[in-house]
Amino acid sequence: MTLARVVGTVVSAQRADSIANPVYLLVERCNQHGAGKQDFLVAIDMMGAKHGEVVLLSTGSSARQTELTDDKPIDAVIIGIIETIDERSAVTYQKDREIP
Amino acid sequence: MTLARVVGTVVSAQRADSIANPVYLLVERCNQHGAGKQDFLVAIDMMGAKHGEVVLLSTGSSARQTELTDDKPIDAVIIGIIETIDERSAVTYQKDREIP
Amino acid sequence: MTLARVVGTVVSAQRADSIANPVYLLVERCNQHGAGKQDFLVAIDMMGAKHGEVVLLSTGSSARQTELTDDKPIDAVIIGIIETIDERSAVTYQKDREIP
Amino acid sequence: MTLARVVGTVVSAQRADSIANPVYLLVERCNQHGAGKQDFLVAIDMMGAKHGEVVLLSTGSSARQTELTDDKPIDAVIIGIIETIDERSAVTYQKDREIP
Amino acid sequence: MTLARVVGTVVSAQRADSIANPVYLLVERCNQHGAGKQDFLVAIDMMGAKHGEVVLLSTGSSARQTELTDDKPIDAVIIGIIETIDERSAVTYQKDREIP
Repeated sequence: MTLARVVGTVVSAQRADSIANPVYLLVERCNQHGAGKQDFLVAIDMMGAKHGEVVLLSTGSSARQTELTDDKPIDAVIIGIIETIDERSAVTYQKDREIP
Repeated sequence: MTLARVVGTVVSAQRADSIANPVYLLVERCNQHGAGKQDFLVAIDMMGAKHGEVVLLSTGSSARQTELTDDKPIDAVIIGIIETIDERSAVTYQKDREIP
Repeated sequence: MTLARVVGTVVSAQRADSIANPVYLLVERCNQHGAGKQDFLVAIDMMGAKHGEVVLLSTGSSARQTELTDDKPIDAVIIGIIETIDERSAVTYQKDREIP
Repeated sequence: MTLARVVGTVVSAQRADSIANPVYLLVERCNQHGAGKQDFLVAIDMMGAKHGEVVLLSTGSSARQTELTDDKPIDAVIIGIIETIDERSAVTYQKDREIP
Repeated sequence: MTLARVVGTVVSAQRADSIANPVYLLVERCNQHGAGKQDFLVAIDMMGAKHGEVVLLSTGSSARQTELTDDKPIDAVIIGIIETIDERSAVTYQKDREIP
């Protein structure tokens, strides 16, 4: 899985995803500090992920292993809101206390 | 999923895709402003996506999760025509009012 | 899918692909003008694609969605011989009249 | 499969993975000497992989071929703790005697 | 599929691959001349591929389409030992007569 930050929304009225009222979010891949990598993609969200939150992305066929996306043409889904990340025992990201 | 702009068409008479009259479009991956990334691929279209429109691409096995592409050797499909994209609450792309 | 040009052949007598007399072609990914990208891979061919022809490649699990490759350890297959490609209404590639 | 080193942990309370108490580890892809490639991802662990250990990663749909991840939205899993790696008959990595 | 050269071995005693005595080989992706690309990965072998041989790699879910790897968390498998490769009618690699 990869880390990404929710940075926007994508609206498409004319769709072939057979999903009722999907929430498509613009996410930017980020590192373990939450710093963006200028690598943007669109992921479907079913967790109510908020703008600015760091999330856990699953991509490829694994993105279809949820009730919402099963058998749907979806290749990127948010499967978690990240609380904390540590690297070599040092906290690099904490949801409510972003380290500047 | 990723964003792309329809920039052309690809015609192949001799095919092994077992799809009657498929529409293969040349698309260029683009960012949330609609700006091209010089990264081109071929996607199948079932939505009548028009030249110049920004679309939502699904790739890999997820591209086969539509009636048209089910069990077909297709790895990229257009699943939506994009209306609007916003990033950090600012509109970065609007279908009928492309921001220069 | 991606565009590629047939540039050679690959022969492997000792194989674990369970395919009788497969044709493995060396292909070079190319752009919509047919210009090579120095990115080579091996694809299985069932269309009699000729040396120098530009073809349509399907990769990943989608490469297994043909009779020949079904349930086989194949991740790249030629699914079409390209006739023409146009970009922004200008022909960029024409099978029998390659634009220098 | 690829080689990676366990470098941290990722905690997500709010999840859509339908896995009870999953262990998400931050891993850094590494080469056959164990040297990091500054390419980080999140993998699920079921082997009790320890901090600093070099592990074998399986990604994509293959990451779902274990009891823990079957039918789950997981695209990266640790499938082995590496003991030794050799290249051209010279040991490049040994678990308990890391070559500086 | 891609070309790679067998350059070493990887040993992991503690595994979650449910394969009895698997042979994990360190391979380096190479071009049609057999020249290495400094891009290493680990592939499972069932063909007795020898050190220095150029092999045909299948990756992703296609790597699971063999008896040994069916339903196993494996994403890269050797499916052939390469005899010869030619490009634009010139032999670029010959198994027993490597062109310096």
